[in-house]
Amino acid sequence: MLDLIIKNGTVVTPWSSFKADIAVKDSVIEAVGAASLFGRAKREIDAEGMYVLPGIIDPHTHFESPFMGCKGALDFYSGSIAGAFGGVTTFIDFTNSRAGHSVMASIRERREEMSKSCIDYGVHAKFVEAERPVLDEIKSIVEYGCPSFKMFMTYKKEGVMIDDEGMLSVMAEAKKWGGLPGVHAENNAIAESNVEKFIEEGRLEWEYFAKSKPNLCEMEAVQRVVLYARYTGCPLYIFHLSTAEGLSVIKQAQSEGVKVFTETCPHYLTLTREKYKQKDGHLYVMSPPLRGEQDLEAMWRGLGDGSISIIGSDDCTYSIEEKEMFLERDAEGNVKQDFTKIANGVQGIEARLMLLLEEGVNKGRITLNKLCEITSYNPAKTFGLYPQKGIIQKGSDADLVIIDPDKVREISHETLHHKVNYSIYDGRSVKGWPVVTIHRGRVIVENGEFLGSRGDGRFMKRKIRL
Amino acid sequence: MLDLIIKNGTVVTPWSSFKADIAVKDSVIEAVGAASLFGRAKREIDAEGMYVLPGIIDPHTHFESPFMGCKGALDFYSGSIAGAFGGVTTFIDFTNSRAGHSVMASIRERREEMSKSCIDYGVHAKFVEAERPVLDEIKSIVEYGCPSFKMFMTYKKEGVMIDDEGMLSVMAEAKKWGGLPGVHAENNAIAESNVEKFIEEGRLEWEYFAKSKPNLCEMEAVQRVVLYARYTGCPLYIFHLSTAEGLSVIKQAQSEGVKVFTETCPHYLTLTREKYKQKDGHLYVMSPPLRGEQDLEAMWRGLGDGSISIIGSDDCTYSIEEKEMFLERDAEGNVKQDFTKIANGVQGIEARLMLLLEEGVNKGRITLNKLCEITSYNPAKTFGLYPQKGIIQKGSDADLVIIDPDKVREISHETLHHKVNYSIYDGRSVKGWPVVTIHRGRVIVENGEFLGSRGDGRFMKRKIRL
Amino acid sequence: MLDLIIKNGTVVTPWSSFKADIAVKDSVIEAVGAASLFGRAKREIDAEGMYVLPGIIDPHTHFESPFMGCKGALDFYSGSIAGAFGGVTTFIDFTNSRAGHSVMASIRERREEMSKSCIDYGVHAKFVEAERPVLDEIKSIVEYGCPSFKMFMTYKKEGVMIDDEGMLSVMAEAKKWGGLPGVHAENNAIAESNVEKFIEEGRLEWEYFAKSKPNLCEMEAVQRVVLYARYTGCPLYIFHLSTAEGLSVIKQAQSEGVKVFTETCPHYLTLTREKYKQKDGHLYVMSPPLRGEQDLEAMWRGLGDGSISIIGSDDCTYSIEEKEMFLERDAEGNVKQDFTKIANGVQGIEARLMLLLEEGVNKGRITLNKLCEITSYNPAKTFGLYPQKGIIQKGSDADLVIIDPDKVREISHETLHHKVNYSIYDGRSVKGWPVVTIHRGRVIVENGEFLGSRGDGRFMKRKIRL
Amino acid sequence: MLDLIIKNGTVVTPWSSFKADIAVKDSVIEAVGAASLFGRAKREIDAEGMYVLPGIIDPHTHFESPFMGCKGALDFYSGSIAGAFGGVTTFIDFTNSRAGHSVMASIRERREEMSKSCIDYGVHAKFVEAERPVLDEIKSIVEYGCPSFKMFMTYKKEGVMIDDEGMLSVMAEAKKWGGLPGVHAENNAIAESNVEKFIEEGRLEWEYFAKSKPNLCEMEAVQRVVLYARYTGCPLYIFHLSTAEGLSVIKQAQSEGVKVFTETCPHYLTLTREKYKQKDGHLYVMSPPLRGEQDLEAMWRGLGDGSISIIGSDDCTYSIEEKEMFLERDAEGNVKQDFTKIANGVQGIEARLMLLLEEGVNKGRITLNKLCEITSYNPAKTFGLYPQKGIIQKGSDADLVIIDPDKVREISHETLHHKVNYSIYDGRSVKGWPVVTIHRGRVIVENGEFLGSRGDGRFMKRKIRL
Repeated sequence: MLDLIIKNGTVVTPWSSFKADIAVKDSVIEAVGAASLFGRAKREIDAEGMYVLPGIIDPHTHFESPFMGCKGALDFYSGSIAGAFGGVTTFIDFTNSRAGHSVMASIRERREEMSKSCIDYGVHAKFVEAERPVLDEIKSIVEYGCPSFKMFMTYKKEGVMIDDEGMLSVMAEAKKWGGLPGVHAENNAIAESNVEKFIEEGRLEWEYFAKSKPNLCEMEAVQRVVLYARYTGCPLYIFHLSTAEGLSVIKQAQSEGVKVFTETCPHYLTLTREKYKQKDGHLYVMSPPLRGEQDLEAMWRGLGDGSISIIGSDDCTYSIEEKEMFLERDAEGNVKQDFTKIANGVQGIEARLMLLLEEGVNKGRITLNKLCEITSYNPAKTFGLYPQKGIIQKGSDADLVIIDPDKVREISHETLHHKVNYSIYDGRSVKGWPVVTIHRGRVIVENGEFLGSRGDGRFMKRKIRL
Repeated sequence: MLDLIIKNGTVVTPWSSFKADIAVKDSVIEAVGAASLFGRAKREIDAEGMYVLPGIIDPHTHFESPFMGCKGALDFYSGSIAGAFGGVTTFIDFTNSRAGHSVMASIRERREEMSKSCIDYGVHAKFVEAERPVLDEIKSIVEYGCPSFKMFMTYKKEGVMIDDEGMLSVMAEAKKWGGLPGVHAENNAIAESNVEKFIEEGRLEWEYFAKSKPNLCEMEAVQRVVLYARYTGCPLYIFHLSTAEGLSVIKQAQSEGVKVFTETCPHYLTLTREKYKQKDGHLYVMSPPLRGEQDLEAMWRGLGDGSISIIGSDDCTYSIEEKEMFLERDAEGNVKQDFTKIANGVQGIEARLMLLLEEGVNKGRITLNKLCEITSYNPAKTFGLYPQKGIIQKGSDADLVIIDPDKVREISHETLHHKVNYSIYDGRSVKGWPVVTIHRGRVIVENGEFLGSRGDGRFMKRKIRL
Repeated sequence: MLDLIIKNGTVVTPWSSFKADIAVKDSVIEAVGAASLFGRAKREIDAEGMYVLPGIIDPHTHFESPFMGCKGALDFYSGSIAGAFGGVTTFIDFTNSRAGHSVMASIRERREEMSKSCIDYGVHAKFVEAERPVLDEIKSIVEYGCPSFKMFMTYKKEGVMIDDEGMLSVMAEAKKWGGLPGVHAENNAIAESNVEKFIEEGRLEWEYFAKSKPNLCEMEAVQRVVLYARYTGCPLYIFHLSTAEGLSVIKQAQSEGVKVFTETCPHYLTLTREKYKQKDGHLYVMSPPLRGEQDLEAMWRGLGDGSISIIGSDDCTYSIEEKEMFLERDAEGNVKQDFTKIANGVQGIEARLMLLLEEGVNKGRITLNKLCEITSYNPAKTFGLYPQKGIIQKGSDADLVIIDPDKVREISHETLHHKVNYSIYDGRSVKGWPVVTIHRGRVIVENGEFLGSRGDGRFMKRKIRL
Repeated sequence: MLDLIIKNGTVVTPWSSFKADIAVKDSVIEAVGAASLFGRAKREIDAEGMYVLPGIIDPHTHFESPFMGCKGALDFYSGSIAGAFGGVTTFIDFTNSRAGHSVMASIRERREEMSKSCIDYGVHAKFVEAERPVLDEIKSIVEYGCPSFKMFMTYKKEGVMIDDEGMLSVMAEAKKWGGLPGVHAENNAIAESNVEKFIEEGRLEWEYFAKSKPNLCEMEAVQRVVLYARYTGCPLYIFHLSTAEGLSVIKQAQSEGVKVFTETCPHYLTLTREKYKQKDGHLYVMSPPLRGEQDLEAMWRGLGDGSISIIGSDDCTYSIEEKEMFLERDAEGNVKQDFTKIANGVQGIEARLMLLLEEGVNKGRITLNKLCEITSYNPAKTFGLYPQKGIIQKGSDADLVIIDPDKVREISHETLHHKVNYSIYDGRSVKGWPVVTIHRGRVIVENGEFLGSRGDGRFMKRKIRL
């Protein structure tokens, strides 16, 4: 007997939407077609009028990751629940690597911490230096199932930046063993010199945060690392692209055959730097900063033409208290604006799907098929989860999200599950809402209830084929 | 009861290959999954070890189309049989429009002629001028189900070229009603002036055919028509692209959001202009001419990166007798080389699949998924046949081709079905061969036998959504 | 004894400005340096505080040239006087070629008509078709001293446009004999289809004139003819460039080594299409039309970076009566706006220098050296007048213009010499004014008086070396 | 009475060549024109049949500059003599700055060392770090007359590289005060990682020197620093460009209005990396390394189209003994190839003119006018020596070089004056040779004799106007 049949829904794949039923057995998909052929199942879900998509894969989260003196609001358990409510069934987070320490060890630590997750998870290995011991670990890191890496091209003073010599060494080594290096692409010299200048001039208002990292700051880093990709022949992942200029460099490289994969985030698709003019601008401080309207539209076009292929949430949720913990206050208790003292990061894992539905699909910028492609199919392909994840077809994990296209709701921190008392998306009305999330054939979100279990998520041993 | 189950095969789609069984009923696909769920069928085909792909769509054939004094070797019946042996289940041919005559009438004539086909078919409307009466027909032509057009940017002396004023008018009108204009993109001035020069200088050897239409000849026409597409906002189809330079212009436009769809042909992917140095070079004369090794590789890369999205055969088969009918002969009966007197055109509808398997898939230039994308999924999407055609999923027509990846055969005009006594691909060994072709759930080729019926093909009323 | 010494002035060349005196004898420059060395002269001019530049060369005028039913306000005598007041000492006009007639004959006719000029002159040979007889004349046209040609890529209905086949033939022939073809680069199909559309829609206001020839209209023609230059290896001159898009194509070609020389006109540097919103917009109708602010600035930048190297006036002066002669009038006698019935063309030969001083030099967009380069040195080099013209050095013709940099005047049709009762530049205040013009060592303008003589100008037999 | 008249020569400027005589008085040029006007002079030189050019300015020498353990063969006295024989009348050398020390002090030291020169000289200020004290000196360094700077983007291990943060600070400060930063543009990460790899693999032959710094190594550095120039608005000088890829980046930037000035050196114009396959390949080791034939031709084309505007010799002459001092030898006394142990640098100040005549002018790649432009006019303009230097006109210093265009000689270390027992140009035959060098009106080289005096050179206080 089948475990589950999802009937009457419209199955959505990156390339088509068609009415079909889905048969699930032993946590995997058994058939896609007419339920009349399938026989009986323990449970049937009637998805008449609904869309059925593969479960979302979020390749970019920061849970339990202390930074700039703050620890963040979400751990791997609460973070995975927030994700499940946003249709996410798999996520990938990063190691907390330190110079002079084994990266392999930090992967094992991280895997241990992640084991409380309710949904599946993977680990990106972060490299902050590339001395011999660390370089020599790369082969076994890839074989262990963590073939995707992260490197920072900025945050020199914070000790997180890897220098170009190191970055190039990691890429050369990754090329050998099938790794996929990814970067946070911002030019440190431009950012740092601007911060110094603004401190000197006393211009510390929120909006100077964005000015300290202008578009060229991202563009330069992108063009440099893309050249390294071209030089080494190593594929490359660009985390959280935010600028039209950076995208233009990437398009050029892609058209010349360089393998560059690009991610952008919900906030670069929905918010602009105008926010920094607000009193509560600090709640919108993340890196790279919010950009202009033209950049926002360029991101959507990049998704449309395929030059940007993946959405990551870059979820790094802080409470207002954490955001403000290092700020001075005036007599009335109002915080004094000082962009240099704000933890960088915003929420996103839960609301991302709703934002993409409203701003993308409903506004005609992308189709539902494209949404499916950039949130599950492409991340699965790029990060080595495919075809176990990222597609609705016989043999794949029954990770599914059912969307009611007619349900209208307002995004509110009160009904979101990220445990902080504000949302940068508060008040946005959305038509189309995920109503059921299924993880490995098991319903984990339904009727607004979380039905999953702590620790049910599994570590995904990944292997990248590009 | 089901009509047919195809069991144990590997289903190939543009984005995945997975083991699954296919249930067929009433000429359409009923389910894709585990046959154990499906119940009984009138017939089962065991496809163990085989690949099952959607039937191939050939959007570019020239059957029963007199040109340069020759009538061609294939009619719509014999042409459709040749196609079926090459896995083709749908093709699109052109009207024979004349200046001053109704294009709508020529569509009806053509549809009548095509009715003898064994497989499904559509019609592209050709425009050789754009006076009012003809422009006014465009709306009804689109509504009739022929929303794709063809225009020639060369052959001025032959009376087939439409001038730029006319081309622009057709594009503006197509934009209004949902038409997709396509062009044969060659600059007439360059081609014509070269022919005159070569005649004057007495350089009439086959290789001067290629020299009369150098790469810039195509590039100029492409950049001009692409600008018209940008200007009018009308989507554009480029038939039979052959040059790296033309592709470069197209890539640039695509990255700026201009909707340009590009086709190339099997011959530009497998042969180069070296052939024109051979004594039998005239057998390789088609327009545009064969190009260099660099162009050939650029075509493959274009398929890889998506800038070229469709393969058309441009099948225009002539017998040796037709190729030579206007040539003089010397005392020994050898033909005298005169490139100006050769009917332009070569075969392709049958061998295209085998060539793509051997030169593309086996040589690692494209995957089997990409082959599926460019031969069925993309043509269906682009020309308004999707989702009835071009995909294996519930509800689509059961047009399928089963490929035996281990079967090794040699291409030979003796075993091909195009009815002429030579093949420009004679002697090529291919690993991977189509062994069964299924049209609307009915097996029409099996065990090397043609099992279809004259007139079984249906006119496809198409509607383009881009 | 010397004929003339110009003392104490600042000599301006394209690359330097330095205090030096100029010795003139027998109509040519004898030395540049310290007058203390020179001995006596028949006359001395004290240029203390003044700039001394080479006489201006205007390579683009339309005198005595009937078009669109109008004959124009200036003939070669009155036009040459207007030029002299603007510092012009040499100009080049065009033949009035007709299809089926000898171009050589039209050169001789034109030379005869020009003989009344007070300053030196040359002839561009215009080609409206390229049949054998005309092509065969090219060699002798070049040898006769008229190696620069003009072709129109638009005005098909007016019978002036040469088709691409003809244009390519002229370029191939020019390449052989050392000719420099130039083009009026506008795409006829775009312009014509827009005019038809606007007539149909009844949108005939002045501003639809500009809309009928949008920027892409020029860009397409430029990119096509530039490709022909690349293909034939023939150098190319672009008359009156007006758009940023066209310039961008040219820059790309120049950086690849294609020899493209670009001219723009005073009006594209000083006026924008805003003028067409005015009631008297018809007085600003010329082809190509005025463009936007961005284009205007692109023109200045093109002059700055050398991609545009020459200023031509495109002087084609019409009186208000001629501009309005085909327009209907309403009851109150006001003209009804109908852009299709206006003679295209504006004045420019006299005011160009003052405009370049005010808008260019005074506003810091170009230096005085650059002004000298683009108005005399470059035209002389490009059109085969150098080193007889275009430079102040021993042995060159003593063609000079003395500018008083402190003289402030207002441009007014009342003080200009173009014989029509308005100026499109009326009311502009200019600092810097030409006060003396010297032609072959003879003062022809001084103290606001014309001192030259009808018929003093000489035909310049030119030979181009690029 | 005049001091000197140079009669009957052909005066060469960047834009013309014309027969004229030159009058000199009190070390400056008094007039250019007909000697018949000039009266008497103490001395006359008959330059009939000769070319007279402005004295050459070499903006890139390394005299008395210890590097990699070697001190070099030339000091400021001997170096200036070698220069004089090559027509050089002014050169600019660099400070030997060290981290933590005053750059202003190193300028003064250097000026003292240079005072023994026979020809005029200037100083580029080198920055190896950009801490506050050094940044604060920039204003006074500019005002002192040393407004051009040098920074290294490589040689991190040698302690000479400035990091990007420092480079950006220097550029921002230079922008404020009118400085012109220049860079040695090579990516350190690529170079360093390659050297490590080659050491590891034991590939130390000369040719691996070139392979350690591939073309992309230069290109990356160029594109990064050009972006900094765009970002800061500061003009930029690229020392010794060597690659087509780097040039392509520069052209793009120049066409967008970024002020980038480019230098290349005689060796990149005349030699290729084939030399490293020779046994004596170490004698050709300089940084950047010699490149391929395509790069060599790109350099010439860059000179032709103006994207490269200056020739510097990068003279850094070493004897064979110095080149080999750190190499091991085998039993027979042959040196063992180890590219990591060779002092980088080659000769050039004397032979550059002859090489440019033979490889440039005689081979038709550049005109004599272009030669004049890139060797004297442009360096004078760019580095703030104009109009005192770099041009033949009234008021300028009488720095001149007279070239006999018919004199044929062979370049040989025996007749050159650089004091080492080999020349990388030995054996090249040259038509055209400098026969007289005049410095401030005084003949310092004539009939193969040096007639100048130690200490006659003067420090040039420069001020840059761009």
